[in-house]
Amino acid sequence: MSDLNDLAGALRSGKYRALAQAVSLVERDDGRAERLLADIYPATGNARIVGITGSPGAGKSTLVATLAKFYRAQEKKVGIIAVDPTSPFTGGAILGDRIRMADLYTDRGVFIRSMATRGFLGGLARATNDVVDLLDAAGFDIVLVETVGVGQDEVEIIRTVQTNVVVLVPGMGDDIQAIKAGIMEIGDVFAVNKADRPGADRTVTEITMMMSLVEEHGDWIPPIVKTVASTNQGTGDLDAAIAKHFEHLQTSGELDRRNRERVRIRIETMLKEKFMDRLIGKTITRDDYEQLLDDVLRKKGNPHDAAEGLLARISFGS
Amino acid sequence: MSDLNDLAGALRSGKYRALAQAVSLVERDDGRAERLLADIYPATGNARIVGITGSPGAGKSTLVATLAKFYRAQEKKVGIIAVDPTSPFTGGAILGDRIRMADLYTDRGVFIRSMATRGFLGGLARATNDVVDLLDAAGFDIVLVETVGVGQDEVEIIRTVQTNVVVLVPGMGDDIQAIKAGIMEIGDVFAVNKADRPGADRTVTEITMMMSLVEEHGDWIPPIVKTVASTNQGTGDLDAAIAKHFEHLQTSGELDRRNRERVRIRIETMLKEKFMDRLIGKTITRDDYEQLLDDVLRKKGNPHDAAEGLLARISFGS
Repeated sequence: MSDLNDLAGALRSGKYRALAQAVSLVERDDGRAERLLADIYPATGNARIVGITGSPGAGKSTLVATLAKFYRAQEKKVGIIAVDPTSPFTGGAILGDRIRMADLYTDRGVFIRSMATRGFLGGLARATNDVVDLLDAAGFDIVLVETVGVGQDEVEIIRTVQTNVVVLVPGMGDDIQAIKAGIMEIGDVFAVNKADRPGADRTVTEITMMMSLVEEHGDWIPPIVKTVASTNQGTGDLDAAIAKHFEHLQTSGELDRRNRERVRIRIETMLKEKFMDRLIGKTITRDDYEQLLDDVLRKKGNPHDAAEGLLARISFGS
Repeated sequence: MSDLNDLAGALRSGKYRALAQAVSLVERDDGRAERLLADIYPATGNARIVGITGSPGAGKSTLVATLAKFYRAQEKKVGIIAVDPTSPFTGGAILGDRIRMADLYTDRGVFIRSMATRGFLGGLARATNDVVDLLDAAGFDIVLVETVGVGQDEVEIIRTVQTNVVVLVPGMGDDIQAIKAGIMEIGDVFAVNKADRPGADRTVTEITMMMSLVEEHGDWIPPIVKTVASTNQGTGDLDAAIAKHFEHLQTSGELDRRNRERVRIRIETMLKEKFMDRLIGKTITRDDYEQLLDDVLRKKGNPHDAAEGLLARISFGS
């Protein structure tokens, strides 16, 4: 346990190696990870958590790299978590991307981690949030979380960021359907990237029109920023839009609401996992559980009654 | 309860209206839905469950429509479940798609349901599987499940189908990254759609090369079929590939393994949901639970200890 205290201490004092070690514990779902996360939890709450969401090919990673360099020029420490399995940060990069990002990898003020491993131990959303906490406690000022924004797990991650930037590109064509279908509702800021391509202004107009159909933004009207990440155009504007949104979060009380939702999601995810761990072992043996599955498969039972039968053996307290 | 018995009976005898009613119960997460699902469960297990997975714009919906018509010509009953929020089946269709699919909507041998509503009551994966069961019990021969294949929820749905068709288009460029990242592993059959476009053969070659890197397919080598869904080319070939895979599932014992995994996922999803329902109410009051969240938010506690504290009040049996 003293090792763990040392690790927590080194992490909180911003030691890069301690951070890398802690992230590895979380990734392996090591039993000590939870104790560590509990220990460092009081030191969290200072980092700005920003989501960068968009389709593969929208240039998210380049935009993340550009933003990271922008913040580095201000001496801010930047964490990058790539949840998008198609992100160049996950190692599937084409050469141009790799070169562009090379200096980020050698900068100790930048911590990059890909969470794209399939079948992530303990769940992707939980692991992502755990790594955000570690970066936060290690004194990182900004954490950029790159996601595709599709699927429940990703949506859960987006729900736990403070500001979500939706990245679109001109000439989306069919993609406009995706916007209709929900992307619009999760954008606090919109970036029209690759804005040197034809049709950028039309895309801005389309987003504005779509936005008028969505009423979930309350008194915040999401700004639309044109960027060309590959040549660093519009990065300052994008930062300004993100900063303005954070100001809005603080003055409107929405920041508190979002942070509270983040806590709720974290606790409930943990509860469900721990519940299953204890159920199989304490309430039913692994062998009997497998037998139960067989019975349902052979139509000697049904999923509903199997679940109810197990829960009936548990006492939930008064 | 006699109403519910009537509904279950009408559903099992294939009444379209009963099916629509039952699906609505599931969608609303109506309390009676579970009893109904338990009642009809013994009548399930006959439908072929086929996933159609691919990026927005790959032409999945057109391919689904084409397959549906192909099976209808053989007098088979076809269920279509659109999980992809960008699917034309979800109502966001462009005019051309709508016309192409119009005759499916008026055919009582076809049942179409979009599951793309965000914040689906009771979870998207569970609801999708419930609707598959309803279609199965109502005597539908084939259920086509259309997904984007990104995100944990979608991956969970794909894990519960029997055969998964991955749809790709020529000239994917950056998309090849997505393939590397995992799509390859979930394909039992590959369809290169829009194969009248330049580069179709190169895409086939690329898939073949990628496939040689993946070793998870065991003794099944996924066939690659070229299709042009909009003009109905290659539909027969695709059906033949799907049929061949089903044969493989049966002879290899893999069908049993997949069906068992389906049962496991269903029971565990139900267990987790019911657990949370009972925890808040029986173990802790809603007010006290909200207070607990506040305490963690204010750093008077941490998520780990909050979860452990609640679980300590529960008796899991001997």
